[in-house]
Amino acid sequence: MQQYGFIGLGIMGSAMARNLITAGYQVTLWNRNPEKCRELEALGAMVANSPARVAAHCHITFAMLADPAAARAVCFGEEGVLAGMTTGKGYVDFSTVDAATSQEIGAAITAKGGRFLEAPVSGSRKPAEDGTLIILTAGERTLYDEALPCLEKLGKKILYLGEGGNGAKMKLVVNMIMGGMMANLCEGLALGAKAGLVPAELLDILESGAVANPLFRLKGGNILAGNFAPAFPLKHMQKDLRLAVELGDRLGQPLPCAAAVNERFKEAKKEGFGEEDFSALYKTVS
Amino acid sequence: MQQYGFIGLGIMGSAMARNLITAGYQVTLWNRNPEKCRELEALGAMVANSPARVAAHCHITFAMLADPAAARAVCFGEEGVLAGMTTGKGYVDFSTVDAATSQEIGAAITAKGGRFLEAPVSGSRKPAEDGTLIILTAGERTLYDEALPCLEKLGKKILYLGEGGNGAKMKLVVNMIMGGMMANLCEGLALGAKAGLVPAELLDILESGAVANPLFRLKGGNILAGNFAPAFPLKHMQKDLRLAVELGDRLGQPLPCAAAVNERFKEAKKEGFGEEDFSALYKTVS
Amino acid sequence: MQQYGFIGLGIMGSAMARNLITAGYQVTLWNRNPEKCRELEALGAMVANSPARVAAHCHITFAMLADPAAARAVCFGEEGVLAGMTTGKGYVDFSTVDAATSQEIGAAITAKGGRFLEAPVSGSRKPAEDGTLIILTAGERTLYDEALPCLEKLGKKILYLGEGGNGAKMKLVVNMIMGGMMANLCEGLALGAKAGLVPAELLDILESGAVANPLFRLKGGNILAGNFAPAFPLKHMQKDLRLAVELGDRLGQPLPCAAAVNERFKEAKKEGFGEEDFSALYKTVS
Amino acid sequence: MQQYGFIGLGIMGSAMARNLITAGYQVTLWNRNPEKCRELEALGAMVANSPARVAAHCHITFAMLADPAAARAVCFGEEGVLAGMTTGKGYVDFSTVDAATSQEIGAAITAKGGRFLEAPVSGSRKPAEDGTLIILTAGERTLYDEALPCLEKLGKKILYLGEGGNGAKMKLVVNMIMGGMMANLCEGLALGAKAGLVPAELLDILESGAVANPLFRLKGGNILAGNFAPAFPLKHMQKDLRLAVELGDRLGQPLPCAAAVNERFKEAKKEGFGEEDFSALYKTVS
Repeated sequence: MQQYGFIGLGIMGSAMARNLITAGYQVTLWNRNPEKCRELEALGAMVANSPARVAAHCHITFAMLADPAAARAVCFGEEGVLAGMTTGKGYVDFSTVDAATSQEIGAAITAKGGRFLEAPVSGSRKPAEDGTLIILTAGERTLYDEALPCLEKLGKKILYLGEGGNGAKMKLVVNMIMGGMMANLCEGLALGAKAGLVPAELLDILESGAVANPLFRLKGGNILAGNFAPAFPLKHMQKDLRLAVELGDRLGQPLPCAAAVNERFKEAKKEGFGEEDFSALYKTVS
Repeated sequence: MQQYGFIGLGIMGSAMARNLITAGYQVTLWNRNPEKCRELEALGAMVANSPARVAAHCHITFAMLADPAAARAVCFGEEGVLAGMTTGKGYVDFSTVDAATSQEIGAAITAKGGRFLEAPVSGSRKPAEDGTLIILTAGERTLYDEALPCLEKLGKKILYLGEGGNGAKMKLVVNMIMGGMMANLCEGLALGAKAGLVPAELLDILESGAVANPLFRLKGGNILAGNFAPAFPLKHMQKDLRLAVELGDRLGQPLPCAAAVNERFKEAKKEGFGEEDFSALYKTVS
Repeated sequence: MQQYGFIGLGIMGSAMARNLITAGYQVTLWNRNPEKCRELEALGAMVANSPARVAAHCHITFAMLADPAAARAVCFGEEGVLAGMTTGKGYVDFSTVDAATSQEIGAAITAKGGRFLEAPVSGSRKPAEDGTLIILTAGERTLYDEALPCLEKLGKKILYLGEGGNGAKMKLVVNMIMGGMMANLCEGLALGAKAGLVPAELLDILESGAVANPLFRLKGGNILAGNFAPAFPLKHMQKDLRLAVELGDRLGQPLPCAAAVNERFKEAKKEGFGEEDFSALYKTVS
Repeated sequence: MQQYGFIGLGIMGSAMARNLITAGYQVTLWNRNPEKCRELEALGAMVANSPARVAAHCHITFAMLADPAAARAVCFGEEGVLAGMTTGKGYVDFSTVDAATSQEIGAAITAKGGRFLEAPVSGSRKPAEDGTLIILTAGERTLYDEALPCLEKLGKKILYLGEGGNGAKMKLVVNMIMGGMMANLCEGLALGAKAGLVPAELLDILESGAVANPLFRLKGGNILAGNFAPAFPLKHMQKDLRLAVELGDRLGQPLPCAAAVNERFKEAKKEGFGEEDFSALYKTVS
């Protein structure tokens, strides 16, 4: 029977690995802290003592790691994925990393005869648990085709975006739009409040019209409730805006509105809201 | 039986008056060009030969006029609504006008003993026909209560926003947010295109996530198709953005992102896209 | 001998009237508080008990008033300039007023057979005392020609800018540029400070190169010294920026940089710096 | 007698080396194309056949190279400066490079026992010929002290800004301010023109007031004359603005006005004006 690996059992990774196991796949796990493997072991998963072992044992290995540094360590480190990689095997990285990191990992895997697919996901804990993530893949097409049945257990929408790097770029564009919408919402709420309008009525009207969207519904309510607990930290949104504006710079695409939004998030970071949810922009705007 | 008036049978007004008649209300019409009354007459409506006659005959008179000048003419002109207004009667104006015009009309109606409700609507031809408009009312509360059964035949969402002027302000805030979202979408599409991403895939991803909204779906498709036929003309959006930024100025609310968006729409107007749909901003951005 | 009037003896007006008297002109004064006339009376000036008397007595009457309200009162009020105006007389208003106020005053003077010249000045107390103001005139050309010898006692630079209103517009453009330069300076000083550079060295380098200008020299030093005593209040600069951006809006001229600067000054006003010098923008930026 | 080296005889370097020779210093030259040495040889300079020979022969070696790549090649290349560097010698680099390049060169020189001073200059051909450059030095203090008599033959203003990297940062801040001023000027000229004002009169007024500066005088005249021949290419100004905004990002300093200016220059570059003078921004603005 086909063997699958899963490396990285944080909030997202645990939920995703569980969905694979529940769907009947044979999964071998590795996590830096092995305690986190116990619960899934009870569901039938195996556990290996290094990323190299996972990769050597499995046809396709998935990974979901916190940041570029962790993604590099798991791949290039001693007893890392690379050490277990051989011709024909596949490595699918769900981590959100920059395009450069992704391309370095991909090149190293390819040099060992393996195949690489970058696959950053859009969505947080709940969609991960429900198997309703959006998965933005890019890289080796044959690996995408082979991994697709697994990916369909994890996401409601799986896209193949072509050559490696496109997944990371797509995420930047999407987050740039989302950051802009948050700025629109915050300025609108602040202006409405100053004009004596009832904020809840503004949200209600937005919800009823052509601009109705889950972000305004969820974050709008949180803003009115003064709840800025971080689902997506403000400093990360600012980083994505910066990277998007820089991407525009390299490509000769002026982005004056996104640049204004970026400066606004920088102001919020300067005022100390970087660790709060990105909706905390409201505190700077109002 | 209670009598209702309806003045102004353009695209929106015709559809709205028809919905009242179909719902069983006794409606008396006036339109500058009386030919437009014929079809509704066939459905049972009466026709009067002046706005004054409509107001004198009816308990509540509705109006849907093109702009502030038309709204003023129908109210203050010879044989206008004001001439037929007497104690206790109601006048409900659906026209989108500035707060000053609305307040002048309201004061004049009130001075004659009448009651006034401003009621700008959000939505275009289709929602008017389907009776699914969003109606933003403000002014005399008792009139709102009495008119509500009628309004519920016209809109899916009817809000009472307090004192006169609040309807106009609310529309500005909503349109400011909508204009901002259009700028976000256009910059995102342009950046994606420059980065080699497939625009339709970007729209697809936006549609699947937290920012999914009817505006992106509709206008995004139009932009990719190069269809900029005016549903909401760009020059009107720019005017609303300008008014919103000026409102912020008067109220001491900085709006740097909306100001950047406003300048972008001004650029598009300068390039000659003022009469096209506001999604034609894309041609300036890309 | 030719008679000249001077109305309004504030800081600026006193200095300007004194320069006329010292140059040998016969000057008749009026000021709301007549005590302020005493010192100049001692130098040979006459004093009249109303603006109307000044205008009736003199061939050309000058005025320097605080704001549009004062300028209107002196012209249109009981015993105002208008009451003393007759065919061929001239009225030169140095006050900084909006173009509309200026044009109303001009039309009223003209209707009485008189001639009107708007003449807003650039410069504050010191240049007024030294006779080194910049005087931006617009309106009746023959009056300009006749008043020129007097104006040359008050300013080092006197321009005739054509039809009435051009003086006000020119001041807006100049102040828009000045406000932008202040924003550049403040952002540069703030960035330099964060980068560990010595602010005084930055000012020194600016002073040595192609961008060297008196504004940076004077205000830069004040900023480093924490001296924000109002020479030109921040709220007035913000008002001028707003008017300039609105002028651009009416004329179809996008001004994205000035709009960003305007929003920054609005932020500073919101933070409570409106009454301080416009260089207090630094406190918001840094 | 003390020996000095000079490497790089482009427009700037030739003029600077000539000033040293004329002042009586013994100078040894190297240039990639040795033909360019002939004229200065006639004035008494010696010529060496590699940068290493120059460095080995001289107590202090100066360099003025086109860009980071040339600066690295001359230092690290075969027979480069590094190969001739020994304990106690000095290397002064006038080239405009990024801080990272400067710090790498400095570290390598220091590792060989030498001393390094970065010394980017502000000013173009004319000040180089006249010996009136502004020289922004940073790095080894003792070398600054020893080189100062030479530097004083080249510049009218020589600053020592502390640790290596400060010269590059200072140049970014200065150019950010200069780019902002150009945007102010262009928007002001464009608004004035639309308002029917005479552009030359606007320049005249600016020249007479607190904002008077050589940049407005020179570039304003060029803009009105339609002369955009590159003294400082627009694409270089945009690059400096981008680097300044990025520096602000790293340091937590919001720069909304500079960001708006940067986007404007990007627009101009997109419209094809990158190779023209940075005053060609006017063509995008107007």
